This record gives sequence, structure tokens and C-alpha cells, in this order.
Amino acid sequence: MLAGLRVLEIGHFVAAPFCARLLADLGADVIKIEPRTGDPARQWGAMVDGRSLWWSMHGRNKRSVTIDLKSEKGRDLVLQLVAQCDAIVENFRPGQLQRMGLGPDRLREIRPDLIVAHVSGYGQDGPGAGRAAFGVIGEAIGGLRYLTNHAPGVVDLPPVRVGVSIGDSIAGLYAAFGVVAALWQRDRAHGDGKARTIDVALTESILSMMEGMLPEYGALGKIKQPTGGAISTAAPSNAYPSADGEWVLIAANSEPLFASLMRLIGRPELIGAPGYASNPERVANAAQLDHVITQWSRTHDADRLVALLDAADIPNSKAFTAADCATDPQYRARGMVREVPDRHFGTVLQAGMVPHVPESPGTIRWTGPDLGEHNHAVLGELLGLPSSAIHALELEGII
Amino acid sequence: MLAGLRVLEIGHFVAAPFCARLLADLGADVIKIEPRTGDPARQWGAMVDGRSLWWSMHGRNKRSVTIDLKSEKGRDLVLQLVAQCDAIVENFRPGQLQRMGLGPDRLREIRPDLIVAHVSGYGQDGPGAGRAAFGVIGEAIGGLRYLTNHAPGVVDLPPVRVGVSIGDSIAGLYAAFGVVAALWQRDRAHGDGKARTIDVALTESILSMMEGMLPEYGALGKIKQPTGGAISTAAPSNAYPSADGEWVLIAANSEPLFASLMRLIGRPELIGAPGYASNPERVANAAQLDHVITQWSRTHDADRLVALLDAADIPNSKAFTAADCATDPQYRARGMVREVPDRHFGTVLQAGMVPHVPESPGTIRWTGPDLGEHNHAVLGELLGLPSSAIHALELEGII
Repeated sequence: MLAGLRVLEIGHFVAAPFCARLLADLGADVIKIEPRTGDPARQWGAMVDGRSLWWSMHGRNKRSVTIDLKSEKGRDLVLQLVAQCDAIVENFRPGQLQRMGLGPDRLREIRPDLIVAHVSGYGQDGPGAGRAAFGVIGEAIGGLRYLTNHAPGVVDLPPVRVGVSIGDSIAGLYAAFGVVAALWQRDRAHGDGKARTIDVALTESILSMMEGMLPEYGALGKIKQPTGGAISTAAPSNAYPSADGEWVLIAANSEPLFASLMRLIGRPELIGAPGYASNPERVANAAQLDHVITQWSRTHDADRLVALLDAADIPNSKAFTAADCATDPQYRARGMVREVPDRHFGTVLQAGMVPHVPESPGTIRWTGPDLGEHNHAVLGELLGLPSSAIHALELEGII
Repeated sequence: MLAGLRVLEIGHFVAAPFCARLLADLGADVIKIEPRTGDPARQWGAMVDGRSLWWSMHGRNKRSVTIDLKSEKGRDLVLQLVAQCDAIVENFRPGQLQRMGLGPDRLREIRPDLIVAHVSGYGQDGPGAGRAAFGVIGEAIGGLRYLTNHAPGVVDLPPVRVGVSIGDSIAGLYAAFGVVAALWQRDRAHGDGKARTIDVALTESILSMMEGMLPEYGALGKIKQPTGGAISTAAPSNAYPSADGEWVLIAANSEPLFASLMRLIGRPELIGAPGYASNPERVANAAQLDHVITQWSRTHDADRLVALLDAADIPNSKAFTAADCATDPQYRARGMVREVPDRHFGTVLQAGMVPHVPESPGTIRWTGPDLGEHNHAVLGELLGLPSSAIHALELEGII
């Protein structure tokens, strides 16, 4: 779907590379500029023979070109590449690209309509722009970490991380959205042909997901509180333990679903009973209700719980582990979980593309490239450099 | 930035409406079709005088038009509106629009190059497409809920919800990305002019954020485990309790930061000590290390902890509550938290726009509209209906 689009990535770690990968997954030609030591993300997570498994997915569909940005010649190569690109995505600390002589103004001398996407912890301006950006800090400032906890007083343990750098990935997704939106306005028939800047902050990306938190605080002084596995406005809805130590989500928060569940667990007397007759009553008694459901859920293994709940048409699911995701028939049928050929690993299990576009489905053209794998192809094809000149740059340590 | 774009939303609850709001925030003309009873989201969350505060933000920048889709005349109005729109965003259960006579084929008889974005629980096809979509179930199937927990064995409580319907919002953001990507290819100078379908599943949107989980499971059988407030690969990084009962995030997971923190808390003897000399050693002893840091953190109030950590240049933050977000100088400076005039509430506190685009910043043109507020404006302007005809439709109960 994005064939014909060329994007330069000067990114590292998660946010900007994830943005660029989303564009590459949909068909854009993404050229990832890396230092000669490589993006540190190449060393992240579990390895096989010194190669990161995550990298096979995180770097896929991109062309890797090594350039030493500290060298004059290296920066000149970047400028020549920019001339051939529609957009650039970067996630240095604000101002760092500028200090290297590669600020937006300089880039746009070369390519006047360049879309420049910056992903940073706190945004490109404002009094806090310069603070070091750590994902967990950004998620805390976005308001997420306060909420990933049990209700106040339940337990004396810290609020949990969601297990992944979700703030980085959401920020990367916002940047991808912004880049294509800017491109549409630039390139359409009656568009304005203009360069634009996409300034995405990790903190703001998280805060944007916080639903009614700000309006309700502003008007009522209400401070949104964590609710553990429950939902503050609907009951019963929680994760319940199985006999074999798994968690099964049950969402029975409507009148018919609640009645079905009570019949299933052998407590039909609670249907319509005082304290359980309406959703507000059930929310008020959610802890007691969860206790009743838990007494039942603990008597069956997770697979049996799922079968019983399915048979009663009650929305439910195990809390999927990696193994559950890997084998799920729906994911497999839609290509969202797939085995991908990889030159180093043989095959590698990867997530598919989001969004799915049936008329022009994204493809995994290749898995994470080796460092500098495309130096010759890119510098030859785009800059017209002969092989001998590229070799000379390698010998000089520029690429 | 998206001026000139017109989008029809036939959405309810969170996912499709959030997608359309992102487009509206950047300047698109979004026409939200609602039943005459309104989107149920108009009743969600805390209310003032019977009006939802969240709705003021969730519905902003859109035009509300009521249409009874069960009526022939109503569906005909939708088809006439589709003729004037670039894209449609919907989140009915798969196939439901088709059953109402408004399937993609029918819509494209009217508007051949229409971009159609579907947001659903599990996608438009596959053996599980028809299951009821509940946000919490989708997040569990996406692999998130298994991870929002303390490490196995630490506590006998369910994994927590992240506090918001994050799966719906991420799916909506993916849909917005897909819509503008399809529009770019359709509308650019050498584009293909083609209609495309954007098929976004809530489950897949979550799974796409799971980093190396699938490749590592596929190659090594490794099942990614929850780690509470910590990170499995870096230490110390966690939330630590303050004397006044708050949580303060500290990310001191590099050699210099670890040394600074140990000096700050009066434990310099641990710098370079056996068991703490490298990140892998610290990860292995993370629980012990967190205990040491907690002994210190409990002796100061949160504000004091932040001041001490800031002075030592150690990345940190309180786990921001609604109140902290509302008053943060960086958010205020960037317009990410702002007071917005509202006809019912006077002013209302809202989150700003992501991404920030300095050349054409998104604006809050109006807060969530009243139900059917734009019936006359839209049907008059786009369909050329005279006021009398619109009144007649109202009297008939069509709009």
C-alpha cells in the first residue's frame, strides 16, 4: 500500500524504529541509518548464535546502511540520501540532530518538502524537553503506571509494568500516522506540497489514551484510581484463577450474561437478588461477587472453564501466554502469527502486519537485515556511487 | 493538516470513534452517524447535569448526525453522504453493516474509491471473527493481560487491567494510520486511485506491541513472564514507595546511574560489590536491590524523593495521577493539557492533540456535539436538502 514511499530512519532502540517498521511493513522503502556499531536493539532480548530473535522482527523489511554521523563525509552521505526521501524519522534527544549539522533546516535545504518526524520522551519544546527519556518514566508521566495496580490498600507491592515498552510503541505508531497524514496533504492533487514536522512525545502518546481522566479531574476533582483486574464501572468483569493456576477472563457484565454465569456456577439465587440486581449494585458488591465466582473457577482447569463458558455464550478467554498466541487458530488463519524464512535462524516466528489490507496485504520481504547489508545496494542505486567508491568509504570507516 | 478530508463514522463506544477523533483533531471533517438514541458512549463516565465529561473530549471536532439505519430512507441518506466522503470508519460486528444493506460493495457502487476501515475484536475473517468483542477479552488474547502481573508466585491476585480500554484505543490509532496510508496511495500524483479496506483487529493491535515475545517463543520455547514493577533485563528499575504513600519510579539501570543512586541512598559500598557490579548481576539480585532502595525511599515523601533524585541526575518520576498530569508544566507548555470552552460545562479540561504538528497544529474547534446537532448543517450543505425536507425527516423519525 505504501509502495513508492521512501523513508530515512535515523533511529535506535524502540520508538522511531517501530514507526519505520510499520511503514516498511506496508511497502515503503525504509533506509535505516546505523552507526558502524549497529543499533543497540540488535543485541536486545534472547539470542541464538549471538543474534537477537527480536531483531529479526523489529528490523524486518528495512535496508540497513551504516554511516558514521560524526564524520563530515558521513553527514554528506545522509544529505544526499535525504534528497531521495519523502520523510525522515528520528528519535535522538531533542536538538541532537541539529548539533550534528543535520537539523530540519539543513535537511530541507536539500529536500524542501521533507516530512520530519521526531519521537522523543517529552516533545521537542517546552521546559522539560531536554530531560533524559526512559520508557518507564514516560509511561509514569503519561498516567499509565498509577493505574496498573490493585485498588488502594489491597496490596503493598508496586504498580506493575505492562511487560513491554508500550509507550515507545504507541509513540511510534502515532508518528507513523502523522507521517502519512502529512504526506497525504503534501502529495494529493489539491494538496499544499508543504513540508511538515511530526513532533511525538512518549508521555503525550500515553496521556492521549487516558479517556475521561482529565475532563473528570478538571470538573469534579476526581482522581482516577486503579482497580486491579476489575473495571470500575461494570461487574462482574475480572480475571479468575483456575484449578491449574491460570487466569481466565470473564466479562459477564450485562443482565443476560450475569444470569447465564450465575446459572453456570450453580448460584441462580443471585439473579435479581438484592445487591446483584443491576450493574450499579454489582459494581458496589464486585469484590463479594468476584469471591463467589472464584470459588467456582478454582474447581476447574482453565481449558474446562473456557469450554463451559463458551457453551454458555459468556465472553471469556485465558490470559494468553506466548504459547497461546503462537497456536491460536484465528491468528494463524489471518497470518497474524506466521513462520518466516530467515537466513540465520532457518525460520522464525513473527507477528504479521497491522492493519490488514486485503487489496494489498503487507508482506515480510525479509527479516532483520545484517548490519550494513544494503550499503552497496543503497549507495549504488540512490547515489550512483561506483562499487570502488563504496569500498573506499568502508576502508575509511565512514560506512 | 487533514483539511479537505471528509470521513463518515458509523461507530460506537471507543475504537472507531477514537480513530475518527484522531482524524478530526488533525482537521478532517468527520460526520458521526448516530442512532436517534445516541452513541452509548455519551452516557459513559462521570456526568455533570446528565452530560458525560468524557464525551466532551471523545466526541470533539465531529459533526453529529442522527440517522435510523433500520429505515430504508435512513440508509439512503447514508449512501448519499458516502458519495461525499473519502473514507468510512465503522466498528459493528463483522458482517453487520452488510446485513443492513450498507456493505462495502454497496457503498462503493456510490463511491468507487471509498476507503473502508473496519475495527473489530478479531478481524473481518477467520474462524473466530464472529465472537463477541469485549475489550478486556481482546487484551487478554493479545497477550497483554498475562504480563500485567507480579512475577509468578509473588501474590495471589489477578493480573491487573491497565485502567483504560487501551486495546480499543490502539486499534483505533492503527485504523487512523491505515486510512491515511490508503488515502496517500489513492490520491497522490502517481498513486493508483484505488479503494482499499483497512481491517484492524483489537487482538492483533495488542499482539503487535509484544516485541520479541513470538520470535523468542518460536525459537526457544520461552514464555514471556510478568515481572511486576521491574524490567526483566535491567536493574534497578521499579516503582518505590514514599513515606507519604506514593510510588516513585526510579530508572538507575546503567553503571553511572547505579553509582549515583547508591551514593544518594548512603550505600556506596554496593558500587562494584559482588552481585551488583554489572547489570546482569543486578538483574539476578533485583529483589534484594529493590529492598535496599525501598528502605531509603520509605524515609522521604514523594516530592522530596523527586527533588533528591533530580539533583543527582537520576531518571525518576512520581507515578502521575490525574492531578499530576493536569498541572504538569511540560504538558501545559505544549498545550497537551488545556482548558477548552464548552457550552454546557463552561470550560472543560482536555488532552491536546497527538501528534503535534507545529506548521498546522490541530485545534479543538468544538467539544463533543449534542446529539444530532449538525443534522441541518450536514444534510443541507452536503445533500442540498431544504430545511423543510429535513424537518419532515425528523418528524418521520428517520433522523
